[in-house]
Amino acid sequence: MPTPLDPVDLTARLVRCNSVTPAEGGALVLLEQVLTDAGFACTRVDRGGIANLYARWGKRGANRSFGFNGHTDVVPIGNPDDWTVDPFGADIRDGFLWGRGATDMKSGVAAFVAAACDMVRDTPPDGAIILAITGDEEGDAQHGTTALLDWMAAQGEAMTDCLVGEPTSPNHMGEAMKIGRRGSLTAHFTFHGVQGHSAYPDRAKNPLPAMARLMDRLASHTLDTGTDHFDASTLAVVTMDTGNPATNVIPATCRATLNIRFNDAHTAAGLTDWMQAELDAVAAETSIRIAMAVKVSGDSFLTPPGALSDLIGRAVQAETGRTPELSTSGGTSDARFVKDHCPVVEFGLVGKTMHMVDEKVPVADIHTLKAIYARILRDYFA
Amino acid sequence: MPTPLDPVDLTARLVRCNSVTPAEGGALVLLEQVLTDAGFACTRVDRGGIANLYARWGKRGANRSFGFNGHTDVVPIGNPDDWTVDPFGADIRDGFLWGRGATDMKSGVAAFVAAACDMVRDTPPDGAIILAITGDEEGDAQHGTTALLDWMAAQGEAMTDCLVGEPTSPNHMGEAMKIGRRGSLTAHFTFHGVQGHSAYPDRAKNPLPAMARLMDRLASHTLDTGTDHFDASTLAVVTMDTGNPATNVIPATCRATLNIRFNDAHTAAGLTDWMQAELDAVAAETSIRIAMAVKVSGDSFLTPPGALSDLIGRAVQAETGRTPELSTSGGTSDARFVKDHCPVVEFGLVGKTMHMVDEKVPVADIHTLKAIYARILRDYFA
Ligand SMILES: [Zn+2]
Ligand SMILES: [Zn+2]
Repeated sequence: MPTPLDPVDLTARLVRCNSVTPAEGGALVLLEQVLTDAGFACTRVDRGGIANLYARWGKRGANRSFGFNGHTDVVPIGNPDDWTVDPFGADIRDGFLWGRGATDMKSGVAAFVAAACDMVRDTPPDGAIILAITGDEEGDAQHGTTALLDWMAAQGEAMTDCLVGEPTSPNHMGEAMKIGRRGSLTAHFTFHGVQGHSAYPDRAKNPLPAMARLMDRLASHTLDTGTDHFDASTLAVVTMDTGNPATNVIPATCRATLNIRFNDAHTAAGLTDWMQAELDAVAAETSIRIAMAVKVSGDSFLTPPGALSDLIGRAVQAETGRTPELSTSGGTSDARFVKDHCPVVEFGLVGKTMHMVDEKVPVADIHTLKAIYARILRDYFA
Repeated sequence: MPTPLDPVDLTARLVRCNSVTPAEGGALVLLEQVLTDAGFACTRVDRGGIANLYARWGKRGANRSFGFNGHTDVVPIGNPDDWTVDPFGADIRDGFLWGRGATDMKSGVAAFVAAACDMVRDTPPDGAIILAITGDEEGDAQHGTTALLDWMAAQGEAMTDCLVGEPTSPNHMGEAMKIGRRGSLTAHFTFHGVQGHSAYPDRAKNPLPAMARLMDRLASHTLDTGTDHFDASTLAVVTMDTGNPATNVIPATCRATLNIRFNDAHTAAGLTDWMQAELDAVAAETSIRIAMAVKVSGDSFLTPPGALSDLIGRAVQAETGRTPELSTSGGTSDARFVKDHCPVVEFGLVGKTMHMVDEKVPVADIHTLKAIYARILRDYFA
């Protein structure tokens, strides 16, 4: 029997690529080589200065295709002096592999690449395995997984189910998978009045009461009390500013910003409509012109518990002895894009040190993760 | 008959004194000399580094005493290059006397000093004439007219009625006297929460909704709809600030400031109590600690139309042909202190150029003002 692909070695080789977003840094070139050698059909799907890699084993239009999604780009290292190791050195010390991307998520990519390569060589499945690996998850993600999915749609390529290999457990390997994430949007408001003397408010148009009223109304509203799989949506007013130093002057303008994290009871469009209606009401009541600009980071996603989460849960249980919680907490991930294409669940390592200095991963966890992914593939195609 | 005292010459001599607050600049020394020569008993009532002059003609404890109140300090000249004249030159040109303090209010002081000196020499009244002249009206007024009134109370000196010689007419000599002025206060609020991540508002305490709610409540409240002699009180929120640039961070603190101009339906203390009650309610509703600091510039004052305003109105009508309006508009003046001692009304020149570059007063108006003040004194003691 041929030697299985070592996911720790592959992780180390990936960590040594300096692939801080948007740099490719050699990471995708390396994976393309490894996957091509294993028999995968590889295509670079680069867009907008971002490198992405699409790899398929098995027939196009196969009955079933299992997809893995992940990223090789990493966040900046910050001040190199704050690190006790070379952030791109991939040192192995004290049972850990150290470096930027060690947990988020070069190890995850290495684990599913290794699992997939072993599978197609040792027990070729009746179906397809698809790897969609992006170089822009940590950036604004405009030309990352989205570019891969757009390209796949145009080519008639599709995943039946997809697993995103992001870190998902807070403390212990195997304790959680994510079947959904809340959506996030930020709204910026500008209130336009007319400057004047504070002794004669009738000759001015003070924008501040309009800001106070609108922010009070929006912040007081209960968006929901949670849904079957999500905590309640939240709205946080994060800043209100005027910058007027003169107590005898009514200012002409002021600004406010709020952030909403919302569950599957809402959409970004619906929330925008709601804010616009409240805005219109306050504008009418106060005769103040109010402008709103909404930036949507992502809608919420939910893959209801079912075949995919059961499959993953069984594999995690078998390899770790833990039954992973079906979580929907945390920020956004590329699963928010994949969810429009097929059922998607996230499962990966412990995320504790991600984005921090001295990011590190237990070497044993990388092996365990590969074993879990391999078991998922076997069960999926069994 | 001896030569009457020339109020234009006296104004010019006062303008030549550089008495930008808090400097005495020789102005009160000059007046003390003039008044002493005319038979007034003069006392310098200096306090806290501020020079003030008290002058009385007639017996202490006389049946009736008529008081004049005014100031010799002036606001800064700004950039001297912006002036077309020497701000301390007192040039007479085109029928105007030019210089800082020409209207506010060295001419007013000169007019009442000249009228009083003539009166006691030519037709000594059965009563007392009191001149309370301060060197700190344009500053924070802590040791100005207040010092004079405190000293008078301690000495058993009192005015039966008082006229403040500030400019009172917007455009034409004689068109308005002030029988009251609104009070003014500024309130500063600080809202103390606990910083956190905007995705997890439950783990933070966001102070912004508390600020929005309190400012909305205070700004929405109708303080009153005006009183017999006053327009409605006004409340203007002048700034709300946070300074948080991060949309994923809930800030720990934020600040707001408002200014209230209030009529005789309110007191500063009553308004402070009202704001504190609203603050307490919002603090209880939001669990946010809120601190308030109130700075009172002055309570409102009103001398209801009656003997004093009738007396002044008749004199103005006789000398100018105009019937002065009984106004309560404008900012604060030292009348806010005098009103606690005796009925007080303000009447003086056209205020158009006060505090501006190229401040100037029509020479003819100074003579008219002296004639009005002289007639008021004659009628008062007739
Ligand atoms: Zn990641
Ligand atoms: Zn003045």
